[in-house]
Amino acid sequence: MTGANDDTICAVSTGTGGAIAVIRVSGQRALEACNHILNLPLGDAGGRFYYRNVVECDDSTVDDVVAAVFRAPHSYTGEDTVEISCHGSRYIQQKILKLLTDRNVRLASAGEFTMRALLNGRLDLAQAEAVADVIAAESCSSHALAVNQMRGGFSHELQILREELVRLASLLELELDFGEEDVEFADRAGLQSLITNIRTKIDRLSRSFAVGNALKNGVAVAIVGSPNVGKSTLLNALVGDDRAMVSDIAGTTRDTLEERVDIDGVIFRFVDTAGLRNTEDRLEQMGIDRARAALERADVVLIVVDARASEEDIAVLYDSVTVSGEQRVCILVNKIDIEGGPFVAGDRGLTHLGRPSAPAPERLFISALRGDGLDDLREWLVAGVDIQGVRNGDTVVSNARHHEALTHTSAALTRAEAGLRDSTPPDLLAQDIREALYHLGLITGEITTDTLLQEIFSHFCIGK
Amino acid sequence: MTGANDDTICAVSTGTGGAIAVIRVSGQRALEACNHILNLPLGDAGGRFYYRNVVECDDSTVDDVVAAVFRAPHSYTGEDTVEISCHGSRYIQQKILKLLTDRNVRLASAGEFTMRALLNGRLDLAQAEAVADVIAAESCSSHALAVNQMRGGFSHELQILREELVRLASLLELELDFGEEDVEFADRAGLQSLITNIRTKIDRLSRSFAVGNALKNGVAVAIVGSPNVGKSTLLNALVGDDRAMVSDIAGTTRDTLEERVDIDGVIFRFVDTAGLRNTEDRLEQMGIDRARAALERADVVLIVVDARASEEDIAVLYDSVTVSGEQRVCILVNKIDIEGGPFVAGDRGLTHLGRPSAPAPERLFISALRGDGLDDLREWLVAGVDIQGVRNGDTVVSNARHHEALTHTSAALTRAEAGLRDSTPPDLLAQDIREALYHLGLITGEITTDTLLQEIFSHFCIGK
Repeated sequence: MTGANDDTICAVSTGTGGAIAVIRVSGQRALEACNHILNLPLGDAGGRFYYRNVVECDDSTVDDVVAAVFRAPHSYTGEDTVEISCHGSRYIQQKILKLLTDRNVRLASAGEFTMRALLNGRLDLAQAEAVADVIAAESCSSHALAVNQMRGGFSHELQILREELVRLASLLELELDFGEEDVEFADRAGLQSLITNIRTKIDRLSRSFAVGNALKNGVAVAIVGSPNVGKSTLLNALVGDDRAMVSDIAGTTRDTLEERVDIDGVIFRFVDTAGLRNTEDRLEQMGIDRARAALERADVVLIVVDARASEEDIAVLYDSVTVSGEQRVCILVNKIDIEGGPFVAGDRGLTHLGRPSAPAPERLFISALRGDGLDDLREWLVAGVDIQGVRNGDTVVSNARHHEALTHTSAALTRAEAGLRDSTPPDLLAQDIREALYHLGLITGEITTDTLLQEIFSHFCIGK
Repeated sequence: MTGANDDTICAVSTGTGGAIAVIRVSGQRALEACNHILNLPLGDAGGRFYYRNVVECDDSTVDDVVAAVFRAPHSYTGEDTVEISCHGSRYIQQKILKLLTDRNVRLASAGEFTMRALLNGRLDLAQAEAVADVIAAESCSSHALAVNQMRGGFSHELQILREELVRLASLLELELDFGEEDVEFADRAGLQSLITNIRTKIDRLSRSFAVGNALKNGVAVAIVGSPNVGKSTLLNALVGDDRAMVSDIAGTTRDTLEERVDIDGVIFRFVDTAGLRNTEDRLEQMGIDRARAALERADVVLIVVDARASEEDIAVLYDSVTVSGEQRVCILVNKIDIEGGPFVAGDRGLTHLGRPSAPAPERLFISALRGDGLDDLREWLVAGVDIQGVRNGDTVVSNARHHEALTHTSAALTRAEAGLRDSTPPDLLAQDIREALYHLGLITGEITTDTLLQEIFSHFCIGK
């Protein structure tokens, strides 16, 4: 982690189409370069901002701006930084960037400001990654996760585990040093419980990824069923918009259609699909294939049936929809508003289906058209996501890279536990502990490589 | 212009999708409201910014932010203002707005910050309007126009003319006061030359609207011709992209297709159109109708012909394309790369066409496919826009509302000039001068109405 950051970088940090835009300049020559393109030099003091004009070499004015001066190390990157607030015109932004690059300031690559913050010790890797998550967060719960991680909650928890592991390792290394004298300094039973304790905590973190991932990326909900049972009407009712084309013609929905809906702070990705039936129509069959693919990827499956369907129809449909044990399934009996109803008995069982081992799926009665029963559906959906931990401020892992590292850490610790039971020599045990430490270190960046950093920051936006 | 601005307003001022976003809060209670949602109160001093956390009432952190404090009158609006730089997540932005509106801060309407700047005397109306133009400017020349107007260049010029008119009016009013004694204070010849002088300046400004409008909105260039002469290939060559679908099938282009291209700092809006021919195909005929409509709206018409076309073909096509005397026309002889050429004589005349009165249109020889002659075409296009004045920093009118007001001002002054020649009584003359002053005052906002302001600011974006 050497600071090969002698160069000064710049980028537009705000989005497109606003009234104002912010151009960030960071590096040793940030002030000098900005002073060159402004009509008056900036003050040296940090924490202040200045009204200035950006001028071209012929003294013509490019824009009136406000330039904020951050002096190292009191900036996001830890370097001298100037943030120029200009008008939001694309022309002006490009012009200012051009004037800066003419003064030997380089255009920043994606995530480069945050990478500098990392290299200058302003953030660790897990915090840096959380910055991107904070920007992308679109629901209360995913935001809470990301902010907690950005502010170091996760890193702090890992740090404690890491310190315990380091202590463990040093006990073992001590034993190793005296190995020839056949002295056992470490109390093996104590070691065993120490490792188990750490592994249990790691496993809890690792398990939290299920909910963390759902919160971060949204819960995928497939809406499936026979043609013309009201799947698109249901999607529209949940979205609160005429998003999907609706008609009384069976097969109106051809391609899958995804809409994100925030329910109680959790994002659900509802996927409306083509009605399932046997067909000769090639295009319709393609749609049905896509419906089945969406079904396989879903975390939750909503099987929509017409209230006039018989129990046998429902059973056949249910059986044709192969759902995995990991998926939550609900049978939505739709169109209960139809005249002449109710048609379907109120049993919530479906116990007569040919899967005695599986728990009977929940059955809810709705009218997508009138909105009846949708609150029950929303409640059922949210109940499936265990956000209590997030609400309590528990650390929840939402990053696939972290999850993978935790899995490896846990595996190494499990090997060490077994080794202790089998009286494995301490040098092999120490190797397992070192491997656990290595994987844990990958998360917060104690262990890192250029390739890993490149890979992580390439997913950032420019200007962050 | 009463200050009914006791309320404090807020809005996101930056665009969507960035790493950071800026929320602007302006009004008497800006600091107080922000202090309520921050973990630590802001300092009272303007010109400084502070690292803070935005917190909810349960003390959970919404985001780490930088809040810049502007104290009245040293802010854009002239009021106390806080600009909160937060992470660019939509969730965070909405959350902060929600926390502010919970503290009785109102969401700003479109352009409301600029309207406050106007009402607080920080800008006049012409300058305020230029702010929107600055943000929308996408070329060097339209940007130069807008910045000059925003910085008050135009207003200053109008102010001088206005003062001269006021002096004129007072001379006439003086004569009116002594009217019954039949004294003529004002030297009528002197008055005459004074008015003519002012009207000449107004007319120059008014005429500049032709180029100002072209620079602001771009120069509309219709590309027309028979089917399959390479119109879409030409569009693609000018855009530098495979924008339009191209094939050797006559009638490939159906709908009109517009692309904006910056040539030498001027935006040209090239409109590719369906090939003109007699057809029975209803869809093709619709395309041809749209081509003719584009032709009528164009400032410049490029008639594309195949190098193998005969002079008679060209003459027939030229005659079928009714071009108005206002439009610049160029005949582009395309496909000069084709084997066996050149086919068309190099005369640049077309003088044998049946329009002896009209000047012969320019004729350029190009290969849209190979790029031959396109530089000549670009040069010809730019030569038609008189941007010398803009480059010299002359005031150029680019706002249709201003142009209309100038036209009315000029008409009133013309009446006054005629009146002076015809020895019209001074009270009627004074009325004409007052009318001229009224229309001039509409531009910079000395004369204004709520309706006018609403109309103008409704075209702004939120947050400006």
